[in-house]
Amino acid sequence: MNKYWSETIKGIIPYVPGEQPRTGRLVKLNTNENPYPPSEAVLEAMKSAVTERLKLYPDPNCTLLRQAAASYYGTSPEMVFAGNGSDEILAFCYKAFFDPGDWLLIPDITYNFYEVYADLFGISYQTIPLTPEFEVSVQAFAEPCDGIILANPNAPTGKALPLIEIEALAKNHPEAVVIVDEAYVDFGGESAIPLLPFYDNLLVIRTFSKSRSLAGLRIGLAFGHPDLIEALIRVRDCVNCFTVDWIAQAGAIASLRDETTFRSNLASIVNTRSKATSLLRAAGFEVIASSTNFLMASYPGLPAKGLYEALRSRNIFVRFFPKPRIDQYLRITVGTDEDMSILLDALTDLT
Amino acid sequence: MNKYWSETIKGIIPYVPGEQPRTGRLVKLNTNENPYPPSEAVLEAMKSAVTERLKLYPDPNCTLLRQAAASYYGTSPEMVFAGNGSDEILAFCYKAFFDPGDWLLIPDITYNFYEVYADLFGISYQTIPLTPEFEVSVQAFAEPCDGIILANPNAPTGKALPLIEIEALAKNHPEAVVIVDEAYVDFGGESAIPLLPFYDNLLVIRTFSKSRSLAGLRIGLAFGHPDLIEALIRVRDCVNCFTVDWIAQAGAIASLRDETTFRSNLASIVNTRSKATSLLRAAGFEVIASSTNFLMASYPGLPAKGLYEALRSRNIFVRFFPKPRIDQYLRITVGTDEDMSILLDALTDLT
Repeated sequence: MNKYWSETIKGIIPYVPGEQPRTGRLVKLNTNENPYPPSEAVLEAMKSAVTERLKLYPDPNCTLLRQAAASYYGTSPEMVFAGNGSDEILAFCYKAFFDPGDWLLIPDITYNFYEVYADLFGISYQTIPLTPEFEVSVQAFAEPCDGIILANPNAPTGKALPLIEIEALAKNHPEAVVIVDEAYVDFGGESAIPLLPFYDNLLVIRTFSKSRSLAGLRIGLAFGHPDLIEALIRVRDCVNCFTVDWIAQAGAIASLRDETTFRSNLASIVNTRSKATSLLRAAGFEVIASSTNFLMASYPGLPAKGLYEALRSRNIFVRFFPKPRIDQYLRITVGTDEDMSILLDALTDLT
Repeated sequence: MNKYWSETIKGIIPYVPGEQPRTGRLVKLNTNENPYPPSEAVLEAMKSAVTERLKLYPDPNCTLLRQAAASYYGTSPEMVFAGNGSDEILAFCYKAFFDPGDWLLIPDITYNFYEVYADLFGISYQTIPLTPEFEVSVQAFAEPCDGIILANPNAPTGKALPLIEIEALAKNHPEAVVIVDEAYVDFGGESAIPLLPFYDNLLVIRTFSKSRSLAGLRIGLAFGHPDLIEALIRVRDCVNCFTVDWIAQAGAIASLRDETTFRSNLASIVNTRSKATSLLRAAGFEVIASSTNFLMASYPGLPAKGLYEALRSRNIFVRFFPKPRIDQYLRITVGTDEDMSILLDALTDLT
């Protein structure tokens, strides 16, 4: 700490991302990356964008990317915003829609960044407990508020909320902005994008970091009423007009055009998830049925922290959250079959 | 405007970047990009970074880039921060060092974003007039404050402040953070980086968008005491842990290693600047002596706005700022000799 730091920064607890270890041989199942690489077509599109044009600022409006996304998702470009990863867009949302004194509702167990943003920008919030089964209860989100933010499917629980319940949140809170982070929806949730024509208070956030194998490129999208998108554009133009570089715009467009690889990788992950869930259960683990590319698993009677550390010493990285209610679980990214086999062997050995 | 917008966003005037026209044939001298492309070595380094590794999150700490920058600038990696363009870093500075109620001093004529950030984050500020000769007067910045932010050389005036005066600002304000934006320093200013060991309140910001021909890639750096850098890291980790993608990290490192092309392009621009200054003066323009890659030029008796529009209709894009004191000037990026020749022919025709 330092006398030059702002009071906000002195007091805040930043988000702690999963480790990005740089050692050579490891099984990395800790940050929900895709085990399958971007396709050759996507890599080629990025290479083709490495040209002399990089001397010029990128298109600040990501025109072609927004057109491609609108076409892919059946909406219009003015309902699409592109950012340098979905985290950037989520942060922009807090400045776009909320002022100090506003009141947000956030699930008590979800992506920790939602609370960090609120702390950073001085927005008040209440955490709403998930049910004992880790479900989002729409009834529990009944109280008046200025905004609701949640992930669907939720992280790190892996549980998805039916679309009708997302719709209920938007319908019950016409004065609030309801932000649905669909980082994991491609793995088994129902997207709220089809609801957008009916709810001008609904914003859907997507990332290319999980299902599209592009965590290293940094691409996120938001979908919503043009007025909500315009607010995000205003925030961006108060921060950094050019957040998505030329190469990222090209890679994201190519990803949206490569449906075959995308679907094939998703199918592989869902298949591996199903097998790993069964095998973990057979090995004595309790595993939450997952709609995402990760599993929450606990072993009755064995502290998760110890398992996490033991795995780590074997160069197998999973995630452990020292947080009430979930500190008995390991969060395990669904990797390849081989990754999961190595993990299962180690866990069998450790339990 | 919309009922869901935050009060801040309803009231704010975002930064207006120079146009990024997409028409084919034009002379683009409006956003201070480098007329020379990144070298083959830099392009190859980026292409080599387009690999399967993009499925993984990038190194959040930009370890290799910070090492390369520390080595290049003669400092240490813990005194370096890397961001998605210098604008992102500047925005982070406002959250890192200032709270509402704090008081900033900003030159009245400078990069307009400094005021936009203050408006966005609710930081109070006073604009300090430049002298009639568009000089920053250190005496005018004497009053107590929590921060000073200025560009050196300044934009859009193109004038540089001697290092001894930057030092005086840091020395006179030991309780304030003094932020020096050196976006244009490679074209003719004196960098304050050598002062950093002596002033723990001094932060120097750099961009790869101008002198390094990488506007389309988005890379900025900050240099300062490790405590200041740590505050920027905390802000980043409250917003978006991974702001600089793999390819940008690789391109930036390669740029720092390609001194020959860098120096050669700088020399060409400085040479063209010198010739264009003489020719514009010979054509009747008043031209401020520039330490940057742009010129501020006015033609006595002819409104700059009209000239700007007339050039635009000929597909020659320069910048015009409808702002007191500078609304008689065109800001003209120094392009290639050929660009400047086309511009001069048009201006001769129009005056």
